[in-house]
Amino acid sequence: MLTANAYAAPSSTGDLIPTTIERRDVGPHDVLIEIKYAGICHSDIHTVRGDWGPQQYPLAPGHEIAGVVTEIGSDVTRHKIGDRVGVGCMVNSCRDCENCRKGEEQYCLNGMTGTYGAVDRDGTITRGGYSSHVVVTEDFVVRIPDGLELDVAAPLLCAGITTYSPLRHWGAGPGKKVAVVGLGGLGHMAVKLASAMGADVTVLSQSLKKQEDGLRLGADDYYATSDPATFETLAGAFDLIINTVSAPIDISSYLQLLTLDGALVNVGAPAEPLPVNVFSLILGRRSFAGSAIGGIRETQEMLDFCAEHQLGAEVEVIPAEKINDAYERVLASDVRYRFVIDASTLG
Amino acid sequence: MLTANAYAAPSSTGDLIPTTIERRDVGPHDVLIEIKYAGICHSDIHTVRGDWGPQQYPLAPGHEIAGVVTEIGSDVTRHKIGDRVGVGCMVNSCRDCENCRKGEEQYCLNGMTGTYGAVDRDGTITRGGYSSHVVVTEDFVVRIPDGLELDVAAPLLCAGITTYSPLRHWGAGPGKKVAVVGLGGLGHMAVKLASAMGADVTVLSQSLKKQEDGLRLGADDYYATSDPATFETLAGAFDLIINTVSAPIDISSYLQLLTLDGALVNVGAPAEPLPVNVFSLILGRRSFAGSAIGGIRETQEMLDFCAEHQLGAEVEVIPAEKINDAYERVLASDVRYRFVIDASTLG
Repeated sequence: MLTANAYAAPSSTGDLIPTTIERRDVGPHDVLIEIKYAGICHSDIHTVRGDWGPQQYPLAPGHEIAGVVTEIGSDVTRHKIGDRVGVGCMVNSCRDCENCRKGEEQYCLNGMTGTYGAVDRDGTITRGGYSSHVVVTEDFVVRIPDGLELDVAAPLLCAGITTYSPLRHWGAGPGKKVAVVGLGGLGHMAVKLASAMGADVTVLSQSLKKQEDGLRLGADDYYATSDPATFETLAGAFDLIINTVSAPIDISSYLQLLTLDGALVNVGAPAEPLPVNVFSLILGRRSFAGSAIGGIRETQEMLDFCAEHQLGAEVEVIPAEKINDAYERVLASDVRYRFVIDASTLG
Repeated sequence: MLTANAYAAPSSTGDLIPTTIERRDVGPHDVLIEIKYAGICHSDIHTVRGDWGPQQYPLAPGHEIAGVVTEIGSDVTRHKIGDRVGVGCMVNSCRDCENCRKGEEQYCLNGMTGTYGAVDRDGTITRGGYSSHVVVTEDFVVRIPDGLELDVAAPLLCAGITTYSPLRHWGAGPGKKVAVVGLGGLGHMAVKLASAMGADVTVLSQSLKKQEDGLRLGADDYYATSDPATFETLAGAFDLIINTVSAPIDISSYLQLLTLDGALVNVGAPAEPLPVNVFSLILGRRSFAGSAIGGIRETQEMLDFCAEHQLGAEVEVIPAEKINDAYERVLASDVRYRFVIDASTLG
């Protein structure tokens, strides 16, 4: 067993505190990663606080991990010591089902193994990236290209792939009009990526507060959804809408903004069902869809794309002692656009 | 002006009664059709009774029309006297918008002109197929191939195209698993068409009452949705689900029956919004979509497909005097599977 420094939540109500956790010994197919940066994702907070179901505590979250390989197992072929690597939302899957064989491990029919709070293949509970080290099977470790700094790369492992995958799947590119609902951690990546893909990008945000940012990040237009005129002006305007807002929004109004055969894709999921006016779908052959992160192959493709386009997340790097403050600020939407923990400060 | 015999509703509450209606003179691009058969669609009843908004009365419904051309305008090139032809749910559109130019006139951005109860291009209110004659611009009249009898062809103009179009759009064919929810007028056509396209077809019906019919019509499997085990057995089973039920159903449960990238397509629309559990969409990149009839070109393609596969609707031909009884039986789901009015009995 290896011991790693970490920050973990002792319960669903307490602050995260410094602690040590155990990591398994490096097996033949494992790599040991010295974590350099770990992003703070809104879902970390939901999970820690038990919003998505009961957890085992202490819980060390974090699934936006960037670091360097410091040890490899005897049979490892994909990575070598010194490689700059990343780990995202999953650390394993069955690898045998139809979806895994397609490279869509995130939709593993037997359940992919989440990076933290999940039952691992060996029966232990996984622990995440708010930690100095992690041991991961080589096939779920991706290469971070030289052109990308590790701090701005870390959030790509969740926020980046979660938006890149649906943009690719639904064909964002030149000649396509893409709207991004919400300009937060996921939204700001969706804007950067869709813009780099060549799409015409519009931000739909509650207010115009972040308009200057949105345009700087690559958006061509920016509208406030608090203004009812927005929904008249933009009726039938978009081929694709990526909804990054997890809170309930009036989906039927947004569906009206789609052109013929357009799709509105949720990448966040509110706990409550959303009412959908079926006429909004029928009159325009529109789709309301969902998408979850992306497969390992596509995650690598996304990182290569980001390096090629010199594109990382907008981050605020914090020491570990600021994690609890950062949580409060994420909940207050007071972050532009991702907190990233400097793992050297973990203890 | 021409005078035609018809059955029309004098108000939203009264029975349909025999009457005469006026048809415009045959213009340069018009054809006059002697109607032989007109199908009774559930939406006729909704419209007559004002369920979908206020109407102008007397209202002569009917948008599943099969007949013979008896006169053509001076500039007509697509049809000639004696041709066996059909008219479906629309009799015109702007022909100039992006969607019309794609041949998707049903999604006309300026609003297609419905076959009855709509404001026509000349400002008059359109009147439908429960009538001895109708005058329609040639571009919205389709050819009924010789291999198809007119009585079984009539329902193809709505029930046929409404199910054919999404089956084609979402790629039903060999190697695809298609479920059809509801075995009524639309559902029985969906089963026949999907089966003829080579898909593996399952009927999902409330009970097993019509199981024998379903299998005879081409279904490979038949399940009762009243049995909760159905939803366990069929989890992740289908590439495509065509929902023909207009009443509210638990969409989220049906979404769970879709495989990766599967789509559930509503061709009917309940008046109330349907709650959708977004996790059902995200976990499998599934889509909830809608589809409305089909374009004129595709309607012709559908009729040619039906002739090639010797496939018409299952009909019960009735004289006009039975229309009000037929409405009651449609509302009680007591029809296998479409009432068709013999237009020679209209008076």
